[in-house]
Amino acid sequence: MSDTGSTAAGGAARHGSRTEAVRVDDDGHCTGLGFADVGELLAQDGWLDTAATARASGTRHPLDAADLAPVVPRPGKVVCVGLNYRNHILEMGRELPEHPTLFAKYADALIGPRDTIELAEESRQTDWEAELALVVGETVRRADEARARRAIAGFTVLNDVTMRDWQYRTKQWLQGKTFEATTPVGPCLVTPDELPGGTAPALTMTCSVDDEPMQKADTSELVFSPVELVRYVSTVTTLRPGDVIATGTPGGVGHARKPPRYLADGSRLVTEISGIGRLENIARRAVD
Amino acid sequence: MSDTGSTAAGGAARHGSRTEAVRVDDDGHCTGLGFADVGELLAQDGWLDTAATARASGTRHPLDAADLAPVVPRPGKVVCVGLNYRNHILEMGRELPEHPTLFAKYADALIGPRDTIELAEESRQTDWEAELALVVGETVRRADEARARRAIAGFTVLNDVTMRDWQYRTKQWLQGKTFEATTPVGPCLVTPDELPGGTAPALTMTCSVDDEPMQKADTSELVFSPVELVRYVSTVTTLRPGDVIATGTPGGVGHARKPPRYLADGSRLVTEISGIGRLENIARRAVD
Repeated sequence: MSDTGSTAAGGAARHGSRTEAVRVDDDGHCTGLGFADVGELLAQDGWLDTAATARASGTRHPLDAADLAPVVPRPGKVVCVGLNYRNHILEMGRELPEHPTLFAKYADALIGPRDTIELAEESRQTDWEAELALVVGETVRRADEARARRAIAGFTVLNDVTMRDWQYRTKQWLQGKTFEATTPVGPCLVTPDELPGGTAPALTMTCSVDDEPMQKADTSELVFSPVELVRYVSTVTTLRPGDVIATGTPGGVGHARKPPRYLADGSRLVTEISGIGRLENIARRAVD
Repeated sequence: MSDTGSTAAGGAARHGSRTEAVRVDDDGHCTGLGFADVGELLAQDGWLDTAATARASGTRHPLDAADLAPVVPRPGKVVCVGLNYRNHILEMGRELPEHPTLFAKYADALIGPRDTIELAEESRQTDWEAELALVVGETVRRADEARARRAIAGFTVLNDVTMRDWQYRTKQWLQGKTFEATTPVGPCLVTPDELPGGTAPALTMTCSVDDEPMQKADTSELVFSPVELVRYVSTVTTLRPGDVIATGTPGGVGHARKPPRYLADGSRLVTEISGIGRLENIARRAVD
Protein backbone atom coordinates (compact mmCIF):
# COMPACT_ATOMS: atom_id res chain seq x y z
CA MET A 1 0.00 0.00 0.00
CA SER A 2 2.60 2.50 -1.14
CA ASP A 3 0.36 5.31 -2.37
CA THR A 4 0.87 7.37 0.74
CA GLY A 5 4.49 6.48 1.19
CA SER A 6 3.90 5.61 4.81
CA THR A 7 1.80 2.47 4.69
CA ALA A 8 3.12 -0.95 3.90
CA ALA A 9 0.63 -3.48 5.07
CA GLY A 10 -2.76 -4.39 6.47
CA GLY A 11 -3.72 -6.75 9.25
CA ALA A 12 -6.62 -7.69 11.50
CA ALA A 13 -6.88 -6.57 15.13
CA ARG A 14 -9.23 -8.07 17.70
CA HIS A 15 -11.42 -5.87 19.91
CA GLY A 16 -13.12 -8.31 22.26
CA SER A 17 -15.04 -10.72 20.05
CA ARG A 18 -14.89 -8.43 16.99
CA THR A 19 -12.07 -8.04 14.54
CA GLU A 20 -11.22 -4.97 12.49
CA ALA A 21 -9.04 -4.61 9.43
CA VAL A 22 -6.11 -2.30 10.20
CA ARG A 23 -3.48 -0.54 8.15
CA VAL A 24 0.05 -1.01 9.47
CA ASP A 25 1.92 2.29 9.34
CA ASP A 26 5.66 2.86 9.23
CA ASP A 27 5.70 4.42 12.69
CA GLY A 28 4.81 1.17 14.46
CA HIS A 29 1.12 1.94 14.77
CA CYS A 30 -1.91 0.43 13.10
CA THR A 31 -4.97 2.32 11.97
CA GLY A 32 -8.50 0.86 12.09
CA LEU A 33 -10.19 0.80 8.70
CA GLY A 34 -13.80 0.16 9.68
CA PHE A 35 -14.10 -3.26 8.05
CA ALA A 36 -14.63 -6.47 10.00
CA ASP A 37 -11.60 -8.07 8.39
CA VAL A 38 -9.21 -7.82 5.48
CA GLY A 39 -11.42 -10.09 3.38
CA GLU A 40 -14.29 -7.63 3.69
CA LEU A 41 -11.95 -4.75 2.89
CA LEU A 42 -10.62 -6.57 -0.19
CA ALA A 43 -14.17 -7.09 -1.45
CA GLN A 44 -14.52 -3.29 -1.87
CA ASP A 45 -13.71 -1.72 -5.20
CA GLY A 46 -10.69 0.50 -4.74
CA TRP A 47 -9.72 -1.13 -1.45
CA LEU A 48 -6.16 0.12 -1.75
CA ASP A 49 -7.30 3.75 -1.84
CA THR A 50 -9.73 3.09 0.99
CA ALA A 51 -6.93 1.70 3.10
CA ALA A 52 -4.48 4.45 2.22
CA THR A 53 -6.80 7.36 2.88
CA ALA A 54 -8.24 6.16 6.19
CA ARG A 55 -5.60 8.03 8.14
CA ALA A 56 -7.78 10.73 9.57
CA SER A 57 -10.78 8.62 10.47
CA GLY A 58 -9.37 5.40 11.88
CA THR A 59 -8.43 4.77 15.50
CA ARG A 60 -4.67 4.28 15.93
CA HIS A 61 -3.02 1.74 18.23
CA PRO A 62 0.58 0.68 18.82
CA LEU A 63 1.07 -2.44 16.69
CA ASP A 64 3.04 -4.27 19.40
CA ALA A 65 0.10 -4.03 21.78
CA ALA A 66 -2.58 -5.04 19.25
CA ASP A 67 -4.25 -8.42 19.62
CA LEU A 68 -3.85 -9.62 16.06
CA ALA A 69 -6.29 -12.05 14.43
CA PRO A 70 -5.39 -14.14 11.36
CA VAL A 71 -4.89 -11.60 8.57
CA VAL A 72 -8.07 -12.98 6.97
CA PRO A 73 -10.00 -14.62 9.83
CA ARG A 74 -12.56 -16.58 7.77
CA PRO A 75 -11.39 -17.02 4.18
CA GLY A 76 -13.90 -18.77 1.94
CA LYS A 77 -11.09 -20.97 0.67
CA VAL A 78 -7.71 -21.88 2.10
CA VAL A 79 -5.81 -23.67 -0.66
CA CYS A 80 -2.50 -25.29 0.29
CA VAL A 81 0.27 -26.39 -2.05
CA GLY A 82 2.58 -29.32 -1.42
CA LEU A 83 6.06 -30.01 -2.86
CA ASN A 84 6.78 -26.59 -4.29
CA TYR A 85 10.43 -25.76 -3.43
CA ARG A 86 12.86 -26.61 -6.21
CA ASN A 87 15.92 -27.28 -4.02
CA HIS A 88 13.98 -29.43 -1.60
CA ILE A 89 12.48 -31.55 -4.39
CA LEU A 90 15.82 -31.99 -6.15
CA GLU A 91 17.67 -32.79 -2.91
CA MET A 92 15.10 -35.50 -2.25
CA GLY A 93 15.97 -37.00 -5.66
CA ARG A 94 12.50 -36.35 -7.07
CA GLU A 95 11.60 -34.89 -10.42
CA LEU A 96 10.00 -31.48 -10.61
CA PRO A 97 6.23 -31.99 -10.73
CA GLU A 98 4.15 -31.19 -13.79
CA HIS A 99 1.16 -29.97 -11.76
CA PRO A 100 0.87 -28.40 -8.31
CA THR A 101 -0.31 -30.68 -5.51
CA LEU A 102 -3.30 -28.99 -3.86
CA PHE A 103 -5.08 -29.72 -0.61
CA ALA A 104 -7.42 -27.80 1.67
CA LYS A 105 -7.54 -26.48 5.20
CA TYR A 106 -10.76 -25.29 6.85
CA ALA A 107 -10.84 -21.75 8.23
CA ASP A 108 -11.21 -23.09 11.79
CA ALA A 109 -7.56 -24.15 11.62
CA LEU A 110 -6.37 -20.53 11.42
CA ILE A 111 -5.01 -18.56 14.39
CA GLY A 112 -3.44 -15.13 14.77
CA PRO A 113 0.28 -14.35 14.51
CA ARG A 114 0.81 -14.46 18.29
CA ASP A 115 -1.84 -17.00 19.28
CA THR A 116 -1.30 -20.34 20.98
CA ILE A 117 -0.97 -23.41 18.76
CA GLU A 118 -3.27 -26.10 20.17
CA LEU A 119 -1.43 -29.40 20.49
CA ALA A 120 -4.26 -31.91 20.20
CA GLU A 121 -4.18 -34.66 22.79
CA GLU A 122 -4.86 -37.13 19.95
CA SER A 123 -1.56 -36.41 18.16
CA ARG A 124 2.07 -36.79 19.17
CA GLN A 125 3.59 -35.52 15.93
CA THR A 126 2.90 -31.81 15.49
CA ASP A 127 5.28 -30.44 12.87
CA TRP A 128 6.03 -27.06 11.27
CA GLU A 129 5.90 -25.89 7.64
CA ALA A 130 6.86 -22.25 7.07
CA GLU A 131 5.14 -20.83 4.00
CA LEU A 132 4.65 -17.69 1.98
CA ALA A 133 0.89 -17.19 1.55
CA LEU A 134 -0.87 -15.01 -0.97
CA VAL A 135 -4.20 -13.31 -0.37
CA VAL A 136 -6.61 -12.89 -3.27
CA GLY A 137 -8.00 -9.40 -3.93
CA GLU A 138 -10.33 -9.95 -6.89
CA THR A 139 -12.93 -12.45 -8.02
CA VAL A 140 -11.35 -14.51 -10.79
CA ARG A 141 -12.13 -17.69 -12.71
CA ARG A 142 -9.94 -19.05 -15.50
CA ALA A 143 -7.58 -16.13 -15.09
CA ASP A 144 -4.84 -15.64 -17.65
CA GLU A 145 -1.42 -14.61 -16.40
CA ALA A 146 -2.10 -10.86 -16.40
CA ARG A 147 -5.43 -11.27 -14.63
CA ALA A 148 -3.91 -13.69 -12.11
CA ARG A 149 -1.18 -11.17 -11.35
CA ARG A 150 -3.71 -8.42 -10.70
CA ALA A 151 -5.74 -10.74 -8.48
CA ILE A 152 -2.96 -11.00 -5.90
CA ALA A 153 -3.75 -8.43 -3.20
CA GLY A 154 -0.59 -9.22 -1.30
CA PHE A 155 1.41 -11.64 0.76
CA THR A 156 1.54 -12.82 4.34
CA VAL A 157 3.28 -15.47 6.45
CA LEU A 158 1.64 -18.80 7.28
CA ASN A 159 2.84 -21.88 9.12
CA ASP A 160 1.03 -24.95 7.80
CA VAL A 161 1.34 -26.77 11.14
CA THR A 162 0.66 -30.46 10.52
CA MET A 163 -0.18 -33.47 12.65
CA ARG A 164 2.04 -35.99 10.80
CA ASP A 165 0.50 -39.06 12.42
CA TRP A 166 -2.93 -37.96 11.21
CA GLN A 167 -1.64 -36.74 7.83
CA TYR A 168 -0.39 -40.25 7.04
CA ARG A 169 -3.25 -42.26 8.55
CA THR A 170 -4.66 -42.40 5.02
CA LYS A 171 -3.38 -41.21 1.67
CA GLN A 172 -5.34 -37.95 1.80
CA TRP A 173 -3.65 -35.33 3.97
CA LEU A 174 -6.67 -33.24 5.04
CA GLN A 175 -7.16 -34.69 8.54
CA GLY A 176 -3.56 -33.95 9.53
CA LYS A 177 -3.69 -30.47 8.03
CA THR A 178 -6.83 -28.98 9.51
CA PHE A 179 -6.69 -29.55 13.26
CA GLU A 180 -8.42 -26.65 14.93
CA ALA A 181 -6.38 -23.61 16.01
CA THR A 182 -3.05 -24.80 14.67
CA THR A 183 -2.18 -22.61 11.67
CA PRO A 184 -0.84 -19.11 12.39
CA VAL A 185 -1.26 -16.56 9.62
CA GLY A 186 -0.18 -12.92 9.57
CA PRO A 187 0.97 -10.60 10.97
CA CYS A 188 -0.10 -8.46 8.03
CA LEU A 189 -0.78 -8.32 4.32
CA VAL A 190 1.96 -6.63 2.28
CA THR A 191 1.13 -5.48 -1.24
CA PRO A 192 3.35 -6.73 -4.10
CA ASP A 193 4.64 -3.26 -4.92
CA GLU A 194 6.33 -3.15 -1.51
CA LEU A 195 8.27 -6.37 -2.05
CA PRO A 196 11.42 -7.19 -4.10
CA GLY A 197 10.16 -9.35 -6.95
CA GLY A 198 6.61 -8.00 -6.70
CA THR A 199 4.17 -10.85 -7.31
CA ALA A 200 7.13 -13.28 -7.39
CA PRO A 201 8.67 -12.11 -4.14
CA ALA A 202 12.33 -12.89 -3.49
CA LEU A 203 12.39 -12.95 0.30
CA THR A 204 14.23 -14.87 2.98
CA MET A 205 11.94 -17.18 4.91
CA THR A 206 13.08 -18.75 8.18
CA CYS A 207 11.53 -20.98 10.80
CA SER A 208 12.94 -21.76 14.22
CA VAL A 209 11.85 -23.78 17.23
CA ASP A 210 13.05 -22.51 20.62
CA ASP A 211 15.60 -20.36 18.77
CA GLU A 212 17.06 -23.32 16.89
CA PRO A 213 16.97 -22.70 13.12
CA MET A 214 14.93 -25.34 11.27
CA GLN A 215 14.02 -23.97 7.83
CA LYS A 216 15.57 -21.33 5.62
CA ALA A 217 14.71 -20.64 2.01
CA ASP A 218 14.38 -17.97 -0.63
CA THR A 219 10.75 -17.61 -1.67
CA SER A 220 11.84 -17.08 -5.27
CA GLU A 221 12.65 -20.83 -5.46
CA LEU A 222 8.99 -21.83 -5.82
CA VAL A 223 8.38 -24.28 -8.67
CA PHE A 224 4.88 -22.88 -9.21
CA SER A 225 4.94 -19.11 -8.70
CA PRO A 226 2.15 -17.22 -6.94
CA VAL A 227 0.79 -16.00 -10.30
CA GLU A 228 0.86 -19.54 -11.72
CA LEU A 229 -0.93 -20.86 -8.63
CA VAL A 230 -3.73 -18.28 -8.97
CA ARG A 231 -4.06 -19.15 -12.64
CA TYR A 232 -4.13 -22.91 -11.93
CA VAL A 233 -6.54 -22.85 -8.99
CA SER A 234 -8.85 -20.47 -10.85
CA THR A 235 -9.18 -23.05 -13.61
CA VAL A 236 -10.88 -25.30 -11.08
CA THR A 237 -12.91 -22.83 -9.06
CA THR A 238 -13.58 -19.14 -8.56
CA LEU A 239 -11.14 -17.33 -6.29
CA ARG A 240 -12.65 -14.50 -4.27
CA PRO A 241 -11.34 -11.58 -2.21
CA GLY A 242 -9.88 -12.89 1.03
CA ASP A 243 -9.15 -16.40 -0.22
CA VAL A 244 -5.71 -17.62 0.80
CA ILE A 245 -3.22 -19.77 -1.11
CA ALA A 246 -0.33 -21.15 0.97
CA THR A 247 2.49 -21.72 -1.50
CA GLY A 248 4.28 -24.70 0.08
CA THR A 249 7.18 -25.31 2.43
CA PRO A 250 10.92 -25.87 1.85
CA GLY A 251 13.08 -28.57 3.47
CA GLY A 252 13.75 -28.66 7.18
CA VAL A 253 10.53 -29.98 8.64
CA GLY A 254 10.76 -31.95 11.89
CA HIS A 255 9.38 -35.20 10.47
CA ALA A 256 12.33 -35.47 8.02
CA ARG A 257 14.98 -34.99 10.72
CA LYS A 258 16.87 -37.93 12.15
CA PRO A 259 15.67 -38.44 14.78
CA PRO A 260 12.35 -36.66 14.03
CA ARG A 261 11.49 -33.53 15.99
CA TYR A 262 8.00 -32.28 16.85
CA LEU A 263 6.51 -29.41 18.78
CA ALA A 264 6.12 -30.05 22.50
CA ASP A 265 4.13 -28.28 25.19
CA GLY A 266 5.74 -24.85 25.49
CA SER A 267 7.67 -24.94 22.20
CA ARG A 268 8.14 -21.49 20.69
CA LEU A 269 7.67 -21.53 16.90
CA VAL A 270 8.94 -18.46 15.07
CA THR A 271 8.19 -18.07 11.37
CA GLU A 272 9.54 -15.02 9.59
CA ILE A 273 9.67 -13.67 6.07
CA SER A 274 11.87 -10.63 5.42
CA GLY A 275 9.81 -7.64 4.32
CA ILE A 276 6.55 -9.13 5.59
CA GLY A 277 6.87 -9.97 9.25
CA ARG A 278 6.99 -12.56 11.93
CA LEU A 279 4.73 -15.16 13.53
CA GLU A 280 5.62 -16.10 17.08
CA ASN A 281 3.49 -18.87 18.54
CA ILE A 282 3.75 -20.98 21.66
CA ALA A 283 2.47 -24.55 21.36
CA ARG A 284 0.30 -25.72 24.24
CA ARG A 285 -1.14 -29.11 24.95
CA ALA A 286 -4.74 -28.65 26.05
CA VAL A 287 -5.52 -29.88 29.53
CA ASP A 288 -8.98 -31.38 29.85
CA MET B 1 -39.52 -33.40 11.13
CA SER B 2 -42.25 -35.71 12.31
CA ASP B 3 -43.70 -33.64 15.14
CA THR B 4 -46.64 -32.48 13.09
CA GLY B 5 -47.17 -35.75 11.30
CA SER B 6 -47.22 -33.98 7.96
CA THR B 7 -43.68 -32.73 7.44
CA ALA B 8 -40.79 -34.93 6.46
CA ALA B 9 -38.05 -32.73 5.19
CA GLY B 10 -36.55 -29.32 4.60
CA GLY B 11 -34.94 -27.85 1.52
CA ALA B 12 -33.83 -24.56 0.02
CA ALA B 13 -35.80 -22.72 -2.64
CA ARG B 14 -34.44 -19.90 -4.77
CA HIS B 15 -36.38 -16.66 -5.22
CA GLY B 16 -34.33 -14.69 -7.74
CA SER B 17 -30.91 -14.26 -6.17
CA ARG B 18 -32.10 -15.12 -2.66
CA THR B 19 -32.65 -18.55 -1.17
CA GLU B 20 -35.10 -19.52 1.55
CA ALA B 21 -35.23 -22.58 3.75
CA VAL B 22 -38.46 -24.46 3.11
CA ARG B 23 -40.28 -27.28 4.81
CA VAL B 24 -41.37 -30.05 2.45
CA ASP B 25 -44.91 -31.12 3.29
CA ASP B 26 -46.59 -34.43 2.52
CA ASP B 27 -49.02 -32.83 0.08
CA GLY B 28 -46.33 -31.99 -2.46
CA HIS B 29 -45.94 -28.39 -1.35
CA CYS B 30 -43.12 -26.60 0.39
CA THR B 31 -43.54 -23.89 3.00
CA GLY B 32 -41.13 -20.98 3.35
CA LEU B 33 -39.56 -20.76 6.80
CA GLY B 34 -38.10 -17.24 6.73
CA PHE B 35 -34.44 -18.28 6.93
CA ALA B 36 -31.94 -17.68 4.15
CA ASP B 37 -30.98 -21.35 4.06
CA VAL B 38 -31.15 -24.58 6.01
CA GLY B 39 -27.77 -23.83 7.61
CA GLU B 40 -29.18 -20.64 9.11
CA LEU B 41 -32.28 -22.49 10.26
CA LEU B 42 -30.17 -25.23 11.88
CA ALA B 43 -28.20 -22.62 13.81
CA GLN B 44 -31.39 -21.71 15.73
CA ASP B 45 -32.11 -23.42 19.04
CA GLY B 46 -35.23 -25.52 18.62
CA TRP B 47 -35.01 -25.45 14.82
CA LEU B 48 -37.18 -28.53 14.52
CA ASP B 49 -40.06 -26.83 16.33
CA THR B 50 -39.51 -23.67 14.32
CA ALA B 51 -39.76 -25.67 11.11
CA ALA B 52 -42.77 -27.67 12.24
CA THR B 53 -44.84 -24.72 13.44
CA ALA B 54 -44.26 -22.42 10.49
CA ARG B 55 -47.36 -23.67 8.75
CA ALA B 56 -49.50 -20.61 9.16
CA SER B 57 -46.88 -17.98 8.40
CA GLY B 58 -44.86 -19.35 5.50
CA THR B 59 -45.62 -18.93 1.83
CA ARG B 60 -46.53 -22.23 0.17
CA HIS B 61 -45.42 -23.34 -3.29
CA PRO B 62 -45.80 -26.58 -5.24
CA LEU B 63 -42.52 -28.46 -4.74
CA ASP B 64 -42.29 -29.55 -8.37
CA ALA B 65 -42.24 -25.94 -9.52
CA ALA B 66 -39.74 -24.72 -6.92
CA ASP B 67 -36.26 -23.71 -8.06
CA LEU B 68 -34.27 -25.69 -5.51
CA ALA B 69 -30.83 -24.59 -4.32
CA PRO B 70 -28.33 -26.97 -2.67
CA VAL B 71 -29.99 -27.99 0.60
CA VAL B 72 -27.25 -26.02 2.39
CA PRO B 73 -26.00 -23.49 -0.19
CA ARG B 74 -22.81 -22.36 1.63
CA PRO B 75 -21.74 -24.89 4.26
CA GLY B 76 -18.72 -23.82 6.28
CA LYS B 77 -17.25 -27.27 5.72
CA VAL B 78 -17.91 -29.94 3.15
CA VAL B 79 -16.09 -33.05 4.32
CA CYS B 80 -15.96 -35.99 1.91
CA VAL B 81 -15.16 -39.60 2.74
CA GLY B 82 -13.42 -42.04 0.38
CA LEU B 83 -13.49 -45.84 0.36
CA ASN B 84 -16.39 -46.39 2.73
CA TYR B 85 -18.55 -49.19 1.24
CA ARG B 86 -17.74 -52.62 2.64
CA ASN B 87 -18.74 -54.67 -0.42
CA HIS B 88 -16.90 -52.41 -2.82
CA ILE B 89 -13.69 -52.52 -0.75
CA LEU B 90 -13.83 -56.31 -0.37
CA GLU B 91 -14.65 -56.88 -4.05
CA MET B 92 -11.56 -54.81 -4.93
CA GLY B 93 -9.51 -57.21 -2.78
CA ARG B 94 -8.59 -54.51 -0.26
CA GLU B 95 -8.67 -54.71 3.49
CA LEU B 96 -11.17 -52.67 5.45
CA PRO B 97 -9.48 -49.41 6.47
CA GLU B 98 -8.66 -48.55 10.07
CA HIS B 99 -9.39 -44.84 9.62
CA PRO B 100 -11.71 -42.94 7.28
CA THR B 101 -10.10 -41.24 4.29
CA LEU B 102 -11.15 -37.58 4.37
CA PHE B 103 -10.88 -34.86 1.75
CA ALA B 104 -12.52 -31.50 1.16
CA LYS B 105 -14.70 -29.79 -1.39
CA TYR B 106 -15.24 -26.01 -1.46
CA ALA B 107 -18.82 -24.73 -1.26
CA ASP B 108 -18.51 -23.29 -4.80
CA ALA B 109 -18.67 -26.85 -6.11
CA LEU B 110 -22.26 -27.31 -4.91
CA ILE B 111 -25.32 -27.02 -7.14
CA GLY B 112 -29.04 -27.62 -6.62
CA PRO B 113 -30.83 -30.92 -7.16
CA ARG B 114 -32.00 -29.97 -10.68
CA ASP B 115 -29.16 -27.69 -11.74
CA THR B 116 -26.80 -28.17 -14.67
CA ILE B 117 -23.49 -29.93 -13.99
CA GLU B 118 -20.75 -27.82 -15.60
CA LEU B 119 -18.44 -30.00 -17.68
CA ALA B 120 -15.19 -28.06 -17.57
CA GLU B 121 -13.49 -27.66 -20.91
CA GLU B 122 -10.23 -28.61 -19.18
CA SER B 123 -11.39 -32.13 -18.30
CA ARG B 124 -12.49 -35.11 -20.39
CA GLN B 125 -13.18 -37.47 -17.49
CA THR B 126 -16.18 -36.31 -15.47
CA ASP B 127 -17.41 -39.20 -13.35
CA TRP B 128 -20.25 -39.84 -10.87
CA GLU B 129 -20.19 -40.88 -7.20
CA ALA B 130 -23.63 -41.26 -5.59
CA GLU B 131 -23.47 -40.60 -1.84
CA LEU B 132 -25.58 -40.33 1.27
CA ALA B 133 -24.71 -37.00 2.93
CA LEU B 134 -25.40 -35.96 6.49
CA VAL B 135 -26.04 -32.40 7.59
CA VAL B 136 -24.82 -31.25 10.98
CA GLY B 137 -27.35 -29.57 13.30
CA GLU B 138 -25.25 -28.70 16.36
CA THR B 139 -21.85 -27.29 17.14
CA VAL B 140 -19.67 -30.18 18.31
CA ARG B 141 -15.99 -30.83 19.01
CA ARG B 142 -14.64 -34.14 20.30
CA ALA B 143 -18.17 -35.54 20.37
CA ASP B 144 -18.73 -38.91 22.03
CA GLU B 145 -21.11 -41.32 20.33
CA ALA B 146 -24.28 -39.98 21.96
CA ARG B 147 -23.36 -36.36 21.22
CA ALA B 148 -22.39 -37.23 17.64
CA ARG B 149 -25.75 -38.92 17.14
CA ARG B 150 -27.63 -35.85 18.38
CA ALA B 151 -25.53 -33.61 16.13
CA ILE B 152 -26.93 -35.18 12.96
CA ALA B 153 -29.78 -32.93 11.79
CA GLY B 154 -30.63 -35.22 8.92
CA PHE B 155 -29.66 -36.72 5.59
CA THR B 156 -29.68 -35.68 1.97
CA VAL B 157 -28.44 -36.96 -1.40
CA LEU B 158 -25.15 -35.79 -2.93
CA ASN B 159 -23.27 -36.76 -6.06
CA ASP B 160 -19.54 -36.23 -5.58
CA VAL B 161 -18.98 -35.59 -9.28
CA THR B 162 -15.25 -35.92 -9.95
CA MET B 163 -12.88 -34.92 -12.73
CA ARG B 164 -10.80 -38.13 -12.72
CA ASP B 165 -7.99 -36.71 -14.88
CA TRP B 166 -7.54 -33.86 -12.39
CA GLN B 167 -8.08 -36.08 -9.34
CA TYR B 168 -5.08 -38.20 -10.36
CA ARG B 169 -2.79 -35.42 -11.62
CA THR B 170 -1.19 -35.53 -8.17
CA LYS B 171 -1.69 -37.75 -5.14
CA GLN B 172 -4.05 -35.30 -3.43
CA TRP B 173 -7.58 -35.48 -4.84
CA LEU B 174 -8.83 -31.93 -4.09
CA GLN B 175 -8.38 -30.43 -7.57
CA GLY B 176 -10.48 -33.18 -9.20
CA LYS B 177 -13.14 -32.95 -6.52
CA THR B 178 -13.93 -29.26 -6.34
CA PHE B 179 -14.54 -28.05 -9.88
CA GLU B 180 -17.09 -25.29 -9.74
CA ALA B 181 -20.80 -26.13 -10.11
CA THR B 182 -20.39 -29.88 -10.36
CA THR B 183 -21.77 -31.41 -7.12
CA PRO B 184 -25.57 -31.66 -6.82
CA VAL B 185 -26.94 -31.84 -3.28
CA GLY B 186 -30.56 -32.14 -2.17
CA PRO B 187 -33.43 -32.17 -2.83
CA CYS B 188 -34.16 -31.93 0.88
CA LEU B 189 -32.99 -32.72 4.39
CA VAL B 190 -34.81 -35.64 6.02
CA THR B 191 -34.55 -36.01 9.78
CA PRO B 192 -33.30 -39.37 11.17
CA ASP B 193 -36.62 -40.20 12.85
CA GLU B 194 -38.24 -40.37 9.40
CA LEU B 195 -35.78 -42.96 8.09
CA PRO B 196 -35.44 -46.73 8.65
CA GLY B 197 -32.27 -47.12 10.69
CA GLY B 198 -32.42 -43.56 12.01
CA THR B 199 -28.90 -42.13 12.18
CA ALA B 200 -27.62 -45.32 10.47
CA PRO B 201 -30.11 -45.21 7.60
CA ALA B 202 -30.75 -48.42 5.67
CA LEU B 203 -31.82 -47.04 2.31
CA THR B 204 -31.44 -48.04 -1.30
CA MET B 205 -29.20 -45.68 -3.22
CA THR B 206 -29.07 -45.77 -7.01
CA CYS B 207 -27.33 -43.80 -9.71
CA SER B 208 -28.07 -43.90 -13.43
CA VAL B 209 -26.77 -42.15 -16.52
CA ASP B 210 -29.28 -41.70 -19.34
CA ASP B 211 -31.50 -44.28 -17.62
CA GLU B 212 -28.75 -46.91 -17.56
CA PRO B 213 -28.18 -48.16 -13.98
CA MET B 214 -24.62 -47.53 -12.79
CA GLN B 215 -24.57 -47.75 -9.00
CA LYS B 216 -26.81 -49.49 -6.49
CA ALA B 217 -26.11 -49.97 -2.81
CA ASP B 218 -27.65 -50.18 0.63
CA THR B 219 -26.53 -47.22 2.73
CA SER B 220 -26.30 -49.49 5.78
CA GLU B 221 -23.12 -51.01 4.27
CA LEU B 222 -20.95 -48.05 5.26
CA VAL B 223 -17.72 -49.07 6.98
CA PHE B 224 -17.72 -45.83 9.01
CA SER B 225 -21.28 -44.97 10.00
CA PRO B 226 -22.63 -41.41 9.99
CA VAL B 227 -22.33 -41.23 13.81
CA GLU B 228 -18.74 -42.54 13.68
CA LEU B 229 -17.87 -39.97 10.98
CA VAL B 230 -19.22 -37.08 13.06
CA ARG B 231 -17.26 -38.37 16.05
CA TYR B 232 -14.06 -38.76 14.01
CA VAL B 233 -14.19 -35.43 12.15
CA SER B 234 -15.08 -33.59 15.37
CA THR B 235 -11.83 -34.86 16.90
CA VAL B 236 -10.00 -32.80 14.30
CA THR B 237 -12.17 -29.70 14.06
CA THR B 238 -15.43 -28.20 15.23
CA LEU B 239 -18.49 -29.18 13.23
CA ARG B 240 -21.16 -26.50 12.98
CA PRO B 241 -24.81 -26.32 11.92
CA GLY B 242 -25.03 -26.65 8.16
CA ASP B 243 -21.74 -28.47 7.71
CA VAL B 244 -22.02 -31.42 5.33
CA ILE B 245 -20.31 -34.82 5.45
CA ALA B 246 -20.58 -36.90 2.27
CA THR B 247 -20.23 -40.50 3.40
CA GLY B 248 -18.58 -42.08 0.36
CA THR B 249 -19.63 -43.92 -2.79
CA PRO B 250 -20.13 -47.62 -3.57
CA GLY B 251 -18.87 -49.47 -6.65
CA GLY B 252 -20.07 -48.67 -10.13
CA VAL B 253 -18.25 -45.46 -10.99
CA GLY B 254 -17.49 -44.80 -14.64
CA HIS B 255 -13.71 -44.73 -14.26
CA ALA B 256 -13.70 -48.39 -13.06
CA ARG B 257 -15.76 -49.67 -16.02
CA LYS B 258 -14.12 -51.40 -18.96
CA PRO B 259 -14.04 -49.39 -21.09
CA PRO B 260 -14.37 -46.35 -18.80
CA ARG B 261 -17.51 -44.22 -19.07
CA TYR B 262 -17.77 -40.50 -18.35
CA LEU B 263 -20.46 -37.83 -18.48
CA ALA B 264 -20.84 -36.19 -21.88
CA ASP B 265 -22.58 -33.02 -23.00
CA GLY B 266 -26.28 -33.67 -22.39
CA SER B 267 -25.85 -36.71 -20.11
CA ARG B 268 -28.67 -37.04 -17.60
CA LEU B 269 -27.39 -38.07 -14.17
CA VAL B 270 -30.04 -39.33 -11.74
CA THR B 271 -29.07 -40.00 -8.13
CA GLU B 272 -31.74 -41.32 -5.79
CA ILE B 273 -31.98 -42.51 -2.22
CA SER B 274 -35.24 -44.17 -1.12
CA GLY B 275 -36.97 -42.15 1.57
CA ILE B 276 -34.96 -39.00 0.84
CA GLY B 277 -35.36 -38.05 -2.78
CA ARG B 278 -33.84 -37.63 -6.16
CA LEU B 279 -31.23 -35.48 -7.89
CA GLU B 280 -31.70 -35.09 -11.63
CA ASN B 281 -28.94 -33.16 -13.35
CA ILE B 282 -28.01 -32.60 -16.96
CA ALA B 283 -24.31 -32.27 -17.72
CA ARG B 284 -23.42 -29.41 -20.07
CA ARG B 285 -20.10 -28.50 -21.59
CA ALA B 286 -19.68 -24.75 -21.34
CA VAL B 287 -19.33 -22.97 -24.64
CA ASP B 288 -16.94 -20.01 -24.57
